[in-house]
Amino acid sequence: MRGIFITMEGPDGAGKTTQINLLSEYLKEKGYEVLVTREPGGTVISEAIRALLLDPAHTEMKPETEMLLYASARAQLVHEVIGPAIESGKAVISDRFVDSSVVYQGIARGLGIDTVYAVNKPAIGDYQPDVTFLLDLPAETGIARKKEQAELDRMERETIEFHKKVAEGYRTLAERDPGRIFKVDATLPIEVICDMMKSRVSGLLRR
Amino acid sequence: MRGIFITMEGPDGAGKTTQINLLSEYLKEKGYEVLVTREPGGTVISEAIRALLLDPAHTEMKPETEMLLYASARAQLVHEVIGPAIESGKAVISDRFVDSSVVYQGIARGLGIDTVYAVNKPAIGDYQPDVTFLLDLPAETGIARKKEQAELDRMERETIEFHKKVAEGYRTLAERDPGRIFKVDATLPIEVICDMMKSRVSGLLRR
Repeated sequence: MRGIFITMEGPDGAGKTTQINLLSEYLKEKGYEVLVTREPGGTVISEAIRALLLDPAHTEMKPETEMLLYASARAQLVHEVIGPAIESGKAVISDRFVDSSVVYQGIARGLGIDTVYAVNKPAIGDYQPDVTFLLDLPAETGIARKKEQAELDRMERETIEFHKKVAEGYRTLAERDPGRIFKVDATLPIEVICDMMKSRVSGLLRR
Repeated sequence: MRGIFITMEGPDGAGKTTQINLLSEYLKEKGYEVLVTREPGGTVISEAIRALLLDPAHTEMKPETEMLLYASARAQLVHEVIGPAIESGKAVISDRFVDSSVVYQGIARGLGIDTVYAVNKPAIGDYQPDVTFLLDLPAETGIARKKEQAELDRMERETIEFHKKVAEGYRTLAERDPGRIFKVDATLPIEVICDMMKSRVSGLLRR
């Protein structure tokens, strides 16, 4: 029996980790074995790729390289971890997935949505998310929240214009695919967001 | 004035490095500034990707990940080094290029030629080689030569069946694109091979 695949998207600082933890608890209560992963990362090889991608020293990285490295990390995560977990009936929640590449590299870096999908086709295989939650937040708010951290990674150090394109890009994606992408106002109280997500997920659960 | 882009292909142990050095000398005599690169590698980021790809410990690497990592390293090399060098009039010789991905991942790993081209399109941009030399060698001979080295990398440790598919895959590519790919018998004496290559390259030189 195939499991469930849920992805969480949104700009840095939108509160994805908090909501993933709450959703994970809910799914466990409903009898699921839950696997939480993050992108880029989640396997030995993918975490090594993550280190390459987020190293602030790599200022010379080209947009095409960035797009392909994210796809590489995703390919290993999907084929080694996510795919087998879904096939064995687990609920998988991934902190970011292919929508991040579409928005960050396809839209904000300008490589084009079709190019990102073409490159990611072999990376994701048959594993499109059953539902994707977009935690929508003004770019300024997300970055302000992140700047309270000690160190920003290479992506977080991008300009405010870049982060605005990301926030807008996510909204565009949500409008294009309203059946899969569920947009939530990330400035709402944590419990309110969580209840909306549970309500949306409950329709996917097995009896 | 646009320069020249030459790639050297063939199985491990075919003698690519020796021929690249001889061809480089020839092009310098003809007045070119020559840039020799290798794949995967040739930039700080690409060499870090190379280390990931060739580490014999990464036995769990999926074919899709491998394909995308080679494309990532290539994207950085092309956009940071090869492209600017060609645009400034240099002669660039690369030890392996996209044909290696077509043969190793597309044919020998079975991911398909079209998939490899689709993934590599943003990596190579407008930089198709002007001429590609294929040093053709029976798989057994190449591997026997390599085994005299101290340590084999992850790709070189593949089975003899894999290396046979590689050798055969290269021949298929050469038959498909005889205008660009020039197949040479790698068991011929070094000087004979070199003379054939010079003869083929001489038509590309500027007056």
